Amino acid sequence: MRWEGLLKAYKDYLPINEHTPMLSLNEGNTPLIRLNKLSDEWGIDLYVKTEGTNPTGSFKDRGMVMAVAKAKEEGSETVICASTGNTSAAAAAYAARAGLRCIVVIPEGKIAMGKLAQAVMYGAEIISIEGNFDDALAMVRKISETEPITLVNSVNPYRLEGQKTGAFEICDQLGGHAPDILALPVGNAGNISAYWKGFKEYHEAKQTGLPRMHGFEAEGSAAIVHNQVIENPETIATAIRIGNPASWHLANAALEESNGKIDEVSDEEILCMYRKLASTEGIFAEPASCASLAGIYKQLRNGEIPHKTRVVAILTGNGLKDPNVAIECSPIRPIVLPNDEEAVAEHIKGVVHV
Amino acid sequence: MRWEGLLKAYKDYLPINEHTPMLSLNEGNTPLIRLNKLSDEWGIDLYVKTEGTNPTGSFKDRGMVMAVAKAKEEGSETVICASTGNTSAAAAAYAARAGLRCIVVIPEGKIAMGKLAQAVMYGAEIISIEGNFDDALAMVRKISETEPITLVNSVNPYRLEGQKTGAFEICDQLGGHAPDILALPVGNAGNISAYWKGFKEYHEAKQTGLPRMHGFEAEGSAAIVHNQVIENPETIATAIRIGNPASWHLANAALEESNGKIDEVSDEEILCMYRKLASTEGIFAEPASCASLAGIYKQLRNGEIPHKTRVVAILTGNGLKDPNVAIECSPIRPIVLPNDEEAVAEHIKGVVHV
Repeated sequence: MRWEGLLKAYKDYLPINEHTPMLSLNEGNTPLIRLNKLSDEWGIDLYVKTEGTNPTGSFKDRGMVMAVAKAKEEGSETVICASTGNTSAAAAAYAARAGLRCIVVIPEGKIAMGKLAQAVMYGAEIISIEGNFDDALAMVRKISETEPITLVNSVNPYRLEGQKTGAFEICDQLGGHAPDILALPVGNAGNISAYWKGFKEYHEAKQTGLPRMHGFEAEGSAAIVHNQVIENPETIATAIRIGNPASWHLANAALEESNGKIDEVSDEEILCMYRKLASTEGIFAEPASCASLAGIYKQLRNGEIPHKTRVVAILTGNGLKDPNVAIECSPIRPIVLPNDEEAVAEHIKGVVHV
Repeated sequence: MRWEGLLKAYKDYLPINEHTPMLSLNEGNTPLIRLNKLSDEWGIDLYVKTEGTNPTGSFKDRGMVMAVAKAKEEGSETVICASTGNTSAAAAAYAARAGLRCIVVIPEGKIAMGKLAQAVMYGAEIISIEGNFDDALAMVRKISETEPITLVNSVNPYRLEGQKTGAFEICDQLGGHAPDILALPVGNAGNISAYWKGFKEYHEAKQTGLPRMHGFEAEGSAAIVHNQVIENPETIATAIRIGNPASWHLANAALEESNGKIDEVSDEEILCMYRKLASTEGIFAEPASCASLAGIYKQLRNGEIPHKTRVVAILTGNGLKDPNVAIECSPIRPIVLPNDEEAVAEHIKGVVHV
């Protein structure tokens, strides 16, 4: 039978009542793929959950389907968010599906328009204000307090409710058991908080066990690691370039309760894993996604993860979301040859396959 | 339990023996989504199968997992193809996963390098030859005949075997019944041939019934519609810009046997449906994908499809594959406003939501 999305699959665990519309773009049910080569190489039992196969290409769809369904249930006709990336795409797609208007507020100037193209395709209206990103976020908060408009940024509590379903799926996919370690990239820290909530709830219902939560920030925006707000966060992993995480306290609770760890990885380590994952296992994820695997590799090198540990790393977004990083990172330098079979065959035989 | 890919799910229907490696990136199991608004608007029961959620973002993964698994089974260490698009991405990803070398041969010059970035990330080696696309295809055929290298272009018969699983999934997702009409974009005509093969095999095994096959070419490359090779095919839908389809005869058989139809749609009709699908239902597919829906809409207007017909349209690729068309097609023109709550609220209230 058809998978009909998260709200139907996990309705007993979600804030759903008889008035909640069963909104869906068939989000969730994402693959859990065992990395056979890296498992052998690293001596652990390693899986990735490829959240980039969600409808808009990132894990944001899990939270957004819940947030937009509740907005519709409550009679809202418009949703609003401040975002220049994955959140705006997810908000716009689910608003379109639900028949709601979607407004995306962005700071003026310096916006990579490519990132917004997806939201625009889904019919979102874009408002650019004369201010920075914090001003845009403050603006959407204020508007949602005074107008009949629902805020769907991560402060919307239904976002975490939807996102926690990722933990349910992992337990289901592993035959009813949580892994030993759950590794995630950390930006706003909402996802690590949501996963931990999900693991706890599922363990209570189904005795799945609990993982240790390992979160990884990018070095240039490692607010939680250094316990201080980063004024000008910088990293190539734009999806986690956040200097003052909204769910900071929830993330700390998840780390403490699970006996977990927060750590940082460099852009170099992230990009190295980004290339290695694609060329070794055939999986192409957004750069930020690869912070999870890069972090696990770092902790393995430091002897912090025992042999044979079962690790699930969340790959938060699709590599196709950020084609420019791919092009910069792996420049295409075709070998130019004459239209001559022998020349091509000779070349192929002569090149040592790396 | 975990979905473990097409080869495991449908092994009784595929050329698999005890020596075939169970290669997988968890391809297949793609969503079948009911288009509620368009169903109401058009008076039919309309679904799309979103093949863009496959691992590399297109339906090509279905055929490629089978072709690369057989190459590995047969002891091949290298696969080769001529492609500048989705085929090269799929070939490179599965070769990486299988531990094989992948060589992509392209014609010199005029190649949109963005399209190749994905294959390069997956570790493919790119050879550019001094010739056109036909020369590149002839080259890889010759090389594969004389060297121990497996050709994975669509002439590889395992490609269609893997692709036919899309038909199985549709029947399974519709509770054991084929739809009345199956609509597909037609480029090389391999997919329509593979789906028809799949529907026939599943009907024989499980009495699922058979659909009528409706194929749609782009006007500028409508070789089958006009029964003539198009020397210089032109369409914005690059994934079906093919003037001499490789599976022409198989497609004609599918059309005849199923009492189906082949038709053409204009670039304007394709782009119109591309925008409408995203902004109405929240689904972002590659432009070529939308030829299937555009064709159904054309036939509805012409009275060729009865009320309440159950139609499944295949959306062959992910919209993120071709971000430039999105940007050109839906230019981002943000409204610029001061950082002032009242101004923003006034604007939102004043704009009529279209």
